[in-house]
Amino acid sequence: MRNDRYYSLNLNIRGIGQSPTLAINELSKQLQAKGKHVYPMGLGQSPFPVPSPVVEALKMHAHEKDYLAVNGLDILRKSVARFHRQIDGVDISSRNVLIGPGSKELMFLLQLVYYGDIILPTPCWVSYAPQAKIVGRNIRLIHTTFENKWLITPEQLESYLTGENDKYRPRLLVLNYPSNPHGGTYSSEELTRIARVAQKHEIIILSDEIYGQLHHKGRHISIARFYPERTIISSGLSKWCGAGGWRLGTFAFPSTLAWLMNSMAAVASETYTSVSTPIQYAAEQAFQGGIVIERYLCHARRILSYIGKRSTEILTNSGIRVHPPDGAFYLFIDFSQCSEKLIPKGIIDSNILCAKLLDETGVAILPGGSFQRPAEELTARLAYVNFDGSKALATSETIPLSERLPEDFGNYCCASVFEAIHKIVEWLN
Amino acid sequence: MRNDRYYSLNLNIRGIGQSPTLAINELSKQLQAKGKHVYPMGLGQSPFPVPSPVVEALKMHAHEKDYLAVNGLDILRKSVARFHRQIDGVDISSRNVLIGPGSKELMFLLQLVYYGDIILPTPCWVSYAPQAKIVGRNIRLIHTTFENKWLITPEQLESYLTGENDKYRPRLLVLNYPSNPHGGTYSSEELTRIARVAQKHEIIILSDEIYGQLHHKGRHISIARFYPERTIISSGLSKWCGAGGWRLGTFAFPSTLAWLMNSMAAVASETYTSVSTPIQYAAEQAFQGGIVIERYLCHARRILSYIGKRSTEILTNSGIRVHPPDGAFYLFIDFSQCSEKLIPKGIIDSNILCAKLLDETGVAILPGGSFQRPAEELTARLAYVNFDGSKALATSETIPLSERLPEDFGNYCCASVFEAIHKIVEWLN
Repeated sequence: MRNDRYYSLNLNIRGIGQSPTLAINELSKQLQAKGKHVYPMGLGQSPFPVPSPVVEALKMHAHEKDYLAVNGLDILRKSVARFHRQIDGVDISSRNVLIGPGSKELMFLLQLVYYGDIILPTPCWVSYAPQAKIVGRNIRLIHTTFENKWLITPEQLESYLTGENDKYRPRLLVLNYPSNPHGGTYSSEELTRIARVAQKHEIIILSDEIYGQLHHKGRHISIARFYPERTIISSGLSKWCGAGGWRLGTFAFPSTLAWLMNSMAAVASETYTSVSTPIQYAAEQAFQGGIVIERYLCHARRILSYIGKRSTEILTNSGIRVHPPDGAFYLFIDFSQCSEKLIPKGIIDSNILCAKLLDETGVAILPGGSFQRPAEELTARLAYVNFDGSKALATSETIPLSERLPEDFGNYCCASVFEAIHKIVEWLN
Repeated sequence: MRNDRYYSLNLNIRGIGQSPTLAINELSKQLQAKGKHVYPMGLGQSPFPVPSPVVEALKMHAHEKDYLAVNGLDILRKSVARFHRQIDGVDISSRNVLIGPGSKELMFLLQLVYYGDIILPTPCWVSYAPQAKIVGRNIRLIHTTFENKWLITPEQLESYLTGENDKYRPRLLVLNYPSNPHGGTYSSEELTRIARVAQKHEIIILSDEIYGQLHHKGRHISIARFYPERTIISSGLSKWCGAGGWRLGTFAFPSTLAWLMNSMAAVASETYTSVSTPIQYAAEQAFQGGIVIERYLCHARRILSYIGKRSTEILTNSGIRVHPPDGAFYLFIDFSQCSEKLIPKGIIDSNILCAKLLDETGVAILPGGSFQRPAEELTARLAYVNFDGSKALATSETIPLSERLPEDFGNYCCASVFEAIHKIVEWLN
């Protein structure tokens, strides 16, 4: 029998393995099955439960079975538009909201329909580049630096865009803040300056704000305020609502980009059709918000801020370079200062670094290479999510929000996170 | 400001509108809003509710929030494999089951990763060809005939495959039975003969059996029995379980095609990630089956069979060509015998036919052109789903399954279907 596997696969897809976050998850499970104690800090899943009003809404609509419109449930699109108007101060109409089975799928559709280059400041989220590969788009990386807190500067962007010498080139810049993988975000001034450059060159911005609601101080600002005419805001339930497994993402377009949304919807109608109906009804409850969800968010932010700060302190005190996160639940660790110790051990790139660390300490984190950093750079992302989010929330709720969490909060609510951080420090010394 | 819409869209996607089924749905709603009475027989959505044990399972798992493995929830994959082993008598391992957000999305991924031609016997389901266009694959249509009950013959297939003069050409034949749009299906003997041709040429078969459980006599047979080594079985919750809006489809591969499944899973991990977690738990209940679901299916089949037969009789008695369906809830009507009456009215293709019919009678059905039939052929698909499925089931449950439904069942349970059929007959005369 002939064997098609040798020749009948799309060349863009050959050699693409599973997403690295999912792969490290599998590896961790295998090691655990062999009896090894593993600290699973590879997959960036919210540790918190879905807020109860949202779970109740799902139960209430469990019998809903009709196909919904491709663009999404009307009342949900209205809630999402209101959410962006109220929280982000951006003028979004419900007509220009698109609901998808995860913002990842929506980004894929965007790259599939948009015929232009994709510009990625690195380190960046693991899936942008593989998606571009699958659809055959050009990927343009702009490497940021530790010194600039891994943020792209307006000067970098300007120099790149001008340097291409192709004024009308269709280009899509992806900005993700608070950032996966480093938790950093942009100030209002920085966003204004980047917006000005983008405006001058008339590029489109995909503003991935999935962690917006997890800004540790609740002060997320969208670049759409400063460049509304060509910014698409990406959000969803996965992070701030703890519902990653539910698969619901949202894109909010300015009316000037409706043509792009319509093309995406046309492809959606030939692929996923629409997002699961009961999930859309439940999401409407989430985007509507309310006191229970607001309180949940305040506690979640306080806990994540506490862990982020303490972990950064421990690492920094041991000579490891890392910035305290402004939001989300990630640390992007730069081990380059320890390279004198690491290189003699054969640790010459981020893949080997993470493999050895996992093997010798059980701490599972993701290599910088997965975030489009140069392979030989000794960086890695740690997701501090290996704790019981329900317990941490319950404990936090006993402490007034006006107070800071006590020093020993970590000992009984997220001991495993700090254990892992200490393991890393010990391992290096 | 420059306007990207003129140049920065993927050429494969330009001009692709929304899926015609969804478009007719929109048009029907617009007419209804204007006060017109519409018989919505365009969209092929199951009229029946989701069986109660399945809805209960969704409620019970509403709090589940973790990302699941890309390929799907383990217990669900086991249930799907067991389902195909028991119901279809095909040896499927749970390792070779892939869960997706609708079988439509899985078909898209298949076409995206498989680098080969797609062969479509027509009339065929509306989305196969647009998907091929989006990913840039060659579409090869094989037109079937009314006389052959719209089924492809082994001779047609043989002649097409041989005629290409390219023995090793990678090719994917899509078979859908019971069929959307005509409700017909293949006999065991026909399947055996088609399988023999496929085997000889070593082509891959995508066997779309989403209506398998809605065979009116419960006697669906899969071609995978006769050609297991290269047949992928497609199924899902949308039709037999009444849960179209839930978005869950399944692909079952032979182990020889695991390489294809793995490539699809790699792309899935960069697109939809995994199917909504609560929905997967509920689906497990559905594929597990049980007495309540079995009874639900028996009643649903009896009702669909009753309507299909009666409608065919009415149409046939008025000189309109249509075959009684073996399964599902569609009639594929051939108006060509009436062309002498239609052409003088300017009705020269299936689009005009359906537009005029909708305008003059309120009956919304889909033109044969949407199913890849020649545009000038006067054919159309009618989905007899415009009735209250819950009420029909409840009524059917009062009548022993050993009996036939009484003649007047239609008058109180699905009067609107027959009203529409009579409207068509009157309109033609």
